[in-house]
Amino acid sequence: MKLLFKNAGILAWKDDRFDYIPEGFLGVDGDTIDYIGADRPQAPYDLVKDMRGRLLIPGIINCHCHAAMTLLRGVGSDLPLDRWLFEAVFPVEDRMKTADFIAGNELAVLELLASGVTAFSDMYMEPKTLIELNEQVGMKVNLTRVVQAFDPSEPPKKNVRVPESLQLFDEYHGCQNGRLRVDFAVHAEYTTNDAVTRYYADKIRPYREKGARVQVHLSETRKEHEACIQRHGMTPAAWFEAMGIFDLPTAAAHCVWCTPEDLNIFKAHGVYPIHNPTSNLKLGSGFAPVPEMLEMGLTVALGTDGAASNNNLNMFEEMHLAAIAMNGYRLDPVLMPPPTVLRMATVNGAALQGRDDTGCLAVGKKADIVAVDMDRPHLYPAFEPLPMLTYSAQASDVCMTMVDGRILYENGEYLTIDRDKALYDAKQAVKRLYGR
Amino acid sequence: MKLLFKNAGILAWKDDRFDYIPEGFLGVDGDTIDYIGADRPQAPYDLVKDMRGRLLIPGIINCHCHAAMTLLRGVGSDLPLDRWLFEAVFPVEDRMKTADFIAGNELAVLELLASGVTAFSDMYMEPKTLIELNEQVGMKVNLTRVVQAFDPSEPPKKNVRVPESLQLFDEYHGCQNGRLRVDFAVHAEYTTNDAVTRYYADKIRPYREKGARVQVHLSETRKEHEACIQRHGMTPAAWFEAMGIFDLPTAAAHCVWCTPEDLNIFKAHGVYPIHNPTSNLKLGSGFAPVPEMLEMGLTVALGTDGAASNNNLNMFEEMHLAAIAMNGYRLDPVLMPPPTVLRMATVNGAALQGRDDTGCLAVGKKADIVAVDMDRPHLYPAFEPLPMLTYSAQASDVCMTMVDGRILYENGEYLTIDRDKALYDAKQAVKRLYGR
Repeated sequence: MKLLFKNAGILAWKDDRFDYIPEGFLGVDGDTIDYIGADRPQAPYDLVKDMRGRLLIPGIINCHCHAAMTLLRGVGSDLPLDRWLFEAVFPVEDRMKTADFIAGNELAVLELLASGVTAFSDMYMEPKTLIELNEQVGMKVNLTRVVQAFDPSEPPKKNVRVPESLQLFDEYHGCQNGRLRVDFAVHAEYTTNDAVTRYYADKIRPYREKGARVQVHLSETRKEHEACIQRHGMTPAAWFEAMGIFDLPTAAAHCVWCTPEDLNIFKAHGVYPIHNPTSNLKLGSGFAPVPEMLEMGLTVALGTDGAASNNNLNMFEEMHLAAIAMNGYRLDPVLMPPPTVLRMATVNGAALQGRDDTGCLAVGKKADIVAVDMDRPHLYPAFEPLPMLTYSAQASDVCMTMVDGRILYENGEYLTIDRDKALYDAKQAVKRLYGR
Repeated sequence: MKLLFKNAGILAWKDDRFDYIPEGFLGVDGDTIDYIGADRPQAPYDLVKDMRGRLLIPGIINCHCHAAMTLLRGVGSDLPLDRWLFEAVFPVEDRMKTADFIAGNELAVLELLASGVTAFSDMYMEPKTLIELNEQVGMKVNLTRVVQAFDPSEPPKKNVRVPESLQLFDEYHGCQNGRLRVDFAVHAEYTTNDAVTRYYADKIRPYREKGARVQVHLSETRKEHEACIQRHGMTPAAWFEAMGIFDLPTAAAHCVWCTPEDLNIFKAHGVYPIHNPTSNLKLGSGFAPVPEMLEMGLTVALGTDGAASNNNLNMFEEMHLAAIAMNGYRLDPVLMPPPTVLRMATVNGAALQGRDDTGCLAVGKKADIVAVDMDRPHLYPAFEPLPMLTYSAQASDVCMTMVDGRILYENGEYLTIDRDKALYDAKQAVKRLYGR
């Protein structure tokens, strides 16, 4: 099917930068963009969709998420970090069963689609629940079977799961027409040990040629960063490098306490730092050195983290915070220009996920497109679309989310997931997990 | 008319704190709340409104706004502070005429009502345009005729307007059934001088008994703060005190660079600091010492500032930022508890505005009520309503805004302002001001 959007504002991508067409046409042939321009294309289309008053932007990519943690939204909100994790989060996670992961993922998908997310990277348990759900939903997901070894004295034990991680890749990487990618993952330095991590690095190294990638948490809190130095005589970045994990392209979440030397390690290995501003602020983790990362030419992406530490999955909020928080911290109002921020949420996210066929609106790219309804009082006037998106727009201004040419969400309606069933499932899960 | 809300979640106010009723009844008699409880009241009501799945919260109070600056939304977004003000903002303001202020105010009202604001404090030009508009709209407004003297060498000149400020109070303070209050205002230390300010302080001092209050900007940027010390040998807070302005209850916007001594001055005079997190971050102004203010028992309120430096008028965003940004800055995840933040946006705002009959949901208070639609994926689960409001909720979750018992906005519809006309007027104003 060939679909033509007409009369739309279009945030296209041209010569490695955003290029705004105030009123134009965007054609989709199957799952691919086949035309962008101010003039009507000559070729015929099966369906023409009037998008007057809408701005088409590339699908937003959430590069760090724990989707099913939606069921832990707001749990222990008033506790300090350690107690929050050990007294509030872990006990609930210990009770979570397959049906709960299904429900948590469903709830996350509702929220992600309604806020313009077309692709996300997930790091959580029971990834097959998400694979099955996404078979029906049709988003793009980079998921993982996380390797963890809570007891650092005894290697392969509970939670380690190296074979399962490899098997997940073998079985599912690239399935769902490439929408589903399997990443490898080490949860963090402080939840594993040298033996397990080196063993895992050796196992995954041959997968590099198959396009495999890695997800990790890295230097999120000062305590974690300093405890690693205490333990290993090196920072988490240096430790991951020493273990051989960075031999594969790696996405590193948080990176709040990274040193200049850590960023050099990232540069040398092509590590992608993920900025998680809400989570880093809310949990009191601090401010990641994002300006320095960008200055060095690192490909910085954006993510929400899980709903337990955010407390939602709203990438517009992340863009907004990425745009303003660092300005206040460094007393510099032009530190994070809107094009840089939007790039982090789109183009850079696609690079991080290993998806070179998405992340921007250009002919030949996949039709991963979000429409923003500009007919909102808080979006007028909008002289420049990029500041409008990063400073004024809200997730609720999203009126259409399309993945691979298929509309998954439009004007409050979900086309590939049953909203009522998802909310029902979530309520049942909450009853099971919390007894209320 | 007597109206009863049934089956509503209610964030009532009891014993000086928020008290959550998961499912209850709230009665409104005319403009006043006459019942709150878990059980159905005995008294008859003319109309019963089912609010299942909605949470009733007190109307949000935006204590620092320049409403008509909506027309300058996003202007000069990529400029450093000085150039932004002098090259982008001031030239547009110089061109603004009465019709533009009307249009800018209309646009602001659309945005404020849809995001749950029932009352706001405004500091801008041509206040009569806002008085006239609000006659029809029915919000609560503290407005001002700002005293400014740009040339510090020659006292009463262009922009000074002391007599107009007094006259505005005499003519309009307390009108519109008390919904309209007139505050006095000195724009800032750096836009006036000693002679004008002392003169004004002497003139307004007798108005104290009539309940008059003052609005100022204070120590927003380091440059402003330090230039004042250079100029006067004292901080802006000490200077306002010396001029006699703090002889009236004063609302001080920003207060980013306030010293401990400044906060003592606030304490001594009952000055209300206004926290403006978005504006302070976006413009690179910095982090106000809010925890210290609260620790000292100062009544801290919240405000958006104008849309030119925000770039919207979204108090949910301000609550969200007030809740998380300071945590990240001070590396302490429990620094700004949700009840404190919601109190800043409601109870404290009412105190700042001199409105002791609103700011919370309690019997005998004015029916200034906002309903939040809880049937949203990003608001589930919501174990605790306060973290839900400050961390997860969005302005777009507001489904009803009521002022003095009158519904002004409900489910996307404005009942006292014509949305289409307001947007049309805004477009005409933009054409006049920007030629596009």
